[in-house]
Amino acid sequence: MEKLLDPALTVKLGDRSYPIYIEQGLFANKHIFDSIKSNQKVMIITNTTIEPLYLESIKTCLKDKTNNIQSLAIPDGEQFKSLETSNTIFTSLLEQNFSRDSILIALGGGVIGDLVGFAAACYQRGIDFIQIPTTLLSQVDSSVGGKTAVNHPLGKNMIGAFYQPQSVIIDINCLSTLPAREFSAGIAEVIKYGIIFDSDFFNWLERHIEKLMALDPVSLKYAIKRCCELKAEVVERDEKEQGDRALLNLGHTFGHAIEAQMGYGNWLHGEAVSVGMLMACETAIQLGCMKDEQKVRIQQLLAKAKLPIKAPDTMPIESYMPHMMRDKKVLAGKLRLVIPIGIGQATVKQEINQEIVIKAIESCL
Amino acid sequence: MEKLLDPALTVKLGDRSYPIYIEQGLFANKHIFDSIKSNQKVMIITNTTIEPLYLESIKTCLKDKTNNIQSLAIPDGEQFKSLETSNTIFTSLLEQNFSRDSILIALGGGVIGDLVGFAAACYQRGIDFIQIPTTLLSQVDSSVGGKTAVNHPLGKNMIGAFYQPQSVIIDINCLSTLPAREFSAGIAEVIKYGIIFDSDFFNWLERHIEKLMALDPVSLKYAIKRCCELKAEVVERDEKEQGDRALLNLGHTFGHAIEAQMGYGNWLHGEAVSVGMLMACETAIQLGCMKDEQKVRIQQLLAKAKLPIKAPDTMPIESYMPHMMRDKKVLAGKLRLVIPIGIGQATVKQEINQEIVIKAIESCL
Repeated sequence: MEKLLDPALTVKLGDRSYPIYIEQGLFANKHIFDSIKSNQKVMIITNTTIEPLYLESIKTCLKDKTNNIQSLAIPDGEQFKSLETSNTIFTSLLEQNFSRDSILIALGGGVIGDLVGFAAACYQRGIDFIQIPTTLLSQVDSSVGGKTAVNHPLGKNMIGAFYQPQSVIIDINCLSTLPAREFSAGIAEVIKYGIIFDSDFFNWLERHIEKLMALDPVSLKYAIKRCCELKAEVVERDEKEQGDRALLNLGHTFGHAIEAQMGYGNWLHGEAVSVGMLMACETAIQLGCMKDEQKVRIQQLLAKAKLPIKAPDTMPIESYMPHMMRDKKVLAGKLRLVIPIGIGQATVKQEINQEIVIKAIESCL
Repeated sequence: MEKLLDPALTVKLGDRSYPIYIEQGLFANKHIFDSIKSNQKVMIITNTTIEPLYLESIKTCLKDKTNNIQSLAIPDGEQFKSLETSNTIFTSLLEQNFSRDSILIALGGGVIGDLVGFAAACYQRGIDFIQIPTTLLSQVDSSVGGKTAVNHPLGKNMIGAFYQPQSVIIDINCLSTLPAREFSAGIAEVIKYGIIFDSDFFNWLERHIEKLMALDPVSLKYAIKRCCELKAEVVERDEKEQGDRALLNLGHTFGHAIEAQMGYGNWLHGEAVSVGMLMACETAIQLGCMKDEQKVRIQQLLAKAKLPIKAPDTMPIESYMPHMMRDKKVLAGKLRLVIPIGIGQATVKQEINQEIVIKAIESCL
């Protein structure tokens, strides 16, 4: 139970490299905090849902290294991933005289990870932080790669920084407390990795989707590790998203439009990405990059993961484009979309005929 | 008038290197924007004082390269160097669909430079920006080195990023429109460079202070260039302020306490630093690092620059320490101060007896 830890992988970014630990039972292993300095000042930032579940375990793990432990619980929800909540964190850190050599711990899902990462990037121009992602989505996606951000009323993730954590600690056990809907939303991103990068992994997912949905730990560990590996490889090649890294946004330009229009949090990110990926697949078919039967396989896998495969019926077709034109991939006023090439490969295309895009959206209405 | 430009110096930071141009009449030279891409989207952010003076000249210089020029004028004053004002900038950028390949231009003093630099660092996780500092203080200090920040009610510059500009454009002519009090505040930082790094430069300043105060362009260009060189050397050695760069904060821990207590903007930064440097000198004398006559020379030079040499008389002695303990140089709860060693050298000392610090403050009451 208290054995020394081997990272499942290391994200290699020179002096900003960091380990990712993936195991069952990590929240009962004090070695997860071996990198914390003796009596270092620590602020654990979590949300009010996660706080009663895991805060005490984390504090217990920390106590061997430091007695300077503070915590702050933010209300749960995407609407708190804001500049205002960042300021709440800054105020709390300042009131308690946190200095540059302190460390933040992000304990929660993607909202907490992105928010705390951004706060760590900006507080006194940057202090250390550790990611402890508690949702499948944040484990396979947002905790790896150093993209931190908060939302703006006019766009998701519009305010942020590239800022790497000191380590990422993934305890698979905590998926047992994750609501089924959020688990499915995480599987959407898992499937995304297969579509973009790895047809073998996509095939594996088709064979193991039932086991994953039943929270089989061996399958979960393999899937999470494979996603983190695939993401780490991209981030190592393209930390600041000037090339390849943009591929990770498959389905996201469409998906962000759905999230923004429906109100952040009403449609989960992974749910919006599920439909968005199908819109991207339809665009790919129109452009001759994908066969119908490949889209059908993707759609079936998403459906088995209990993910939506149709757009919200209250969202009018004409409301997509204005949101999509605010995407960070837009360059010089031109829409750029990630387009899958069959299963296992993808590319960024620009100057796609707008009629094709509209038609692809319509195919999911 | 429209000759090609040679940088006065280049700040060497690998792929984040950038040129600093220092000349008279740059605001009439379209070559200052040679790095702007054809029809690149540009947002000039300035304040309401600078807007009527220089915005049109800058726009005219830009017009050869791009017609996509927007501008935003923030009210003038340190109180607008806030997270709220950053958000005003983000809103404006989003409303006008500014994307990652756009560029911001900071036209103004240190408040505008720090604020716009921070906004550029965070907008869509980082877009390019150009610094056009219009005050002496920002020309010699805040525009060089990539420290960007906004204030928090509990502390100055507590929220920020290390983020380098694409270029810095210093037109000496614009000092003629700078209020005398702000010019003096800038001279405080100029004198600081002599004390910390360069006794020859300090001697030069003693001989040229009258010329500088009379805005002699040759003296001004030399002084600004020398300060930028000295600062660039430190930043090149220590971009993230883990060592040497902290020396630039001579007088700042005391000075920030004065600014925070008196309300930001009531005492100008340079004025607070002037008194703060004398407090640091007195601390140095107590520690045997400086001779009385050296402090007298410094005090005389500051006085000739029409800078305050006494602390605000409405500020009680006991209000200094709580502010000083929030300084970013505080590590593990211990105050660290920059202490001059004679004239031309300085060091960071920690664990200084608090009585000595109090005595040093009292010497300036």
